[in-house]
Amino acid sequence: MEIFKKKEKIGEKIREIKKTGKKIGFVATMGYLHNGHISLISKAREENDIVIVSIFVNPTQFGPGEDFERYPRNVNRDIELLEKEKVDIVFIPDADEMYKKDHKAWVNVEEYSEILEGKLRKGHFRGVCTVVAKLFNIIQPDRSYFGWKDAQQLIIIKKMVDDLDIPVEIVGCPTLREKSGLAESSRNIYLTEEEKQKALCLYKALKKIEEMAKKGEKNTKKLIEEGKKIILSTGGVELQYLEIVNIENLQPVEKIDNNTIVLGAIKIGNVHLIDNIFL
Amino acid sequence: MEIFKKKEKIGEKIREIKKTGKKIGFVATMGYLHNGHISLISKAREENDIVIVSIFVNPTQFGPGEDFERYPRNVNRDIELLEKEKVDIVFIPDADEMYKKDHKAWVNVEEYSEILEGKLRKGHFRGVCTVVAKLFNIIQPDRSYFGWKDAQQLIIIKKMVDDLDIPVEIVGCPTLREKSGLAESSRNIYLTEEEKQKALCLYKALKKIEEMAKKGEKNTKKLIEEGKKIILSTGGVELQYLEIVNIENLQPVEKIDNNTIVLGAIKIGNVHLIDNIFL
Repeated sequence: MEIFKKKEKIGEKIREIKKTGKKIGFVATMGYLHNGHISLISKAREENDIVIVSIFVNPTQFGPGEDFERYPRNVNRDIELLEKEKVDIVFIPDADEMYKKDHKAWVNVEEYSEILEGKLRKGHFRGVCTVVAKLFNIIQPDRSYFGWKDAQQLIIIKKMVDDLDIPVEIVGCPTLREKSGLAESSRNIYLTEEEKQKALCLYKALKKIEEMAKKGEKNTKKLIEEGKKIILSTGGVELQYLEIVNIENLQPVEKIDNNTIVLGAIKIGNVHLIDNIFL
Repeated sequence: MEIFKKKEKIGEKIREIKKTGKKIGFVATMGYLHNGHISLISKAREENDIVIVSIFVNPTQFGPGEDFERYPRNVNRDIELLEKEKVDIVFIPDADEMYKKDHKAWVNVEEYSEILEGKLRKGHFRGVCTVVAKLFNIIQPDRSYFGWKDAQQLIIIKKMVDDLDIPVEIVGCPTLREKSGLAESSRNIYLTEEEKQKALCLYKALKKIEEMAKKGEKNTKKLIEEGKKIILSTGGVELQYLEIVNIENLQPVEKIDNNTIVLGAIKIGNVHLIDNIFL
């Protein structure tokens, strides 16, 4: 496994690979890898000749007062995991390598970036889109793998790639969960066992909505109402949003169909957690 | 010479070329080609194996009330010229091919895009950056050629490419001029002979500033004052701006050095004309 820290050096490597015609699968991460990341990497390993993983805690997707500074990091542990997964190349740039002081060019998916998570985290998706566009330009992958756990992120990246004609296939992979049902997230490390129990209320709300939908309830207002009850009745949990939207354009829908997803976010103390289920 | 109208078809062709390792030189145009365009194409022809030219009057870089509808077009004449120049591939998409109705992803170079031309033409450079990023993703050129005539555009595109790690070398080429000194522009077709005479005041102002600078005048206020006199004393011409700025970041400077450029814009009737000279 080769490790690169500089764009120029990995660029030379990429040009070499491109000459051979080998297909590159790419997984962008912020490190502190969990089973969710590993499932993306396995899928990339299955479908491509070369697997490249980036580890970069992207400062531009964190707002002021968010957890950029304390975001969990453990690069040595990550590298061990990546070796086990037979990753070919790891790209670990530092912030100065990715952003010059006078960085001015941004990629933004308007409207999509201003709702749901984007409403809570101003500028978050502009930061995500910009760093993903940069990484795609550096790595030039054939395919790139993102988790459905971050559904809005995945939908926005698909839209960016489609609208800007970026020649990368975006592959969405299912959310991995702990045994309890809690969605795997690097931020779970922030939670005590008791808080993890409480955090489950979001998953339970989503499952309740899924169950009602399966039984034939199509009215999203009613479904959301039932879901909210579960979250609001859990002490120490702040409901941030719970919405049922179209899976392609993130617009709220009145009745569920084959293209709907229920997305939710809660806050426990300072910890922001998200989850979703297809309906 | 092959002509493509669809992204998918030219995409197949590009993938074929890429496999051969041949270098692609690209010139993006809005058609109605003049000597300025031809000089870019000649340079691309010299330096690359394959030359690709796009003809696309990009609607997103025109504001409301600007000349998108009446912008001069003559694709048949353009194609004849391109054949003479031994261009290999021409890409002539229509607007629906380039932009879906629900287009939402934009590339913007903040600050750089809001001054000078950007102040007069809100959203202009966001449209330019977005279409150039799209064309680069579709064509995947090794080098792309832009005229110094549109100096702010060239500086912004260089900044976009640099900030977003787009793997394309941007080559700036000198402004071509009519015998009188008037900068070549597709918009010159809008002018009567009398108006062309008047339009020369901008070039004369730039040359006056250049001459004074050569004689040792470094104070930009004084230089601009002298230049403005020439434009303001010409009847039927509206001065839009005349500024001396740093060539890399477009910031105004108090004293000229080796990195300064004087940029100006005038309006004659409805016709907006720009020009510039390195100092």
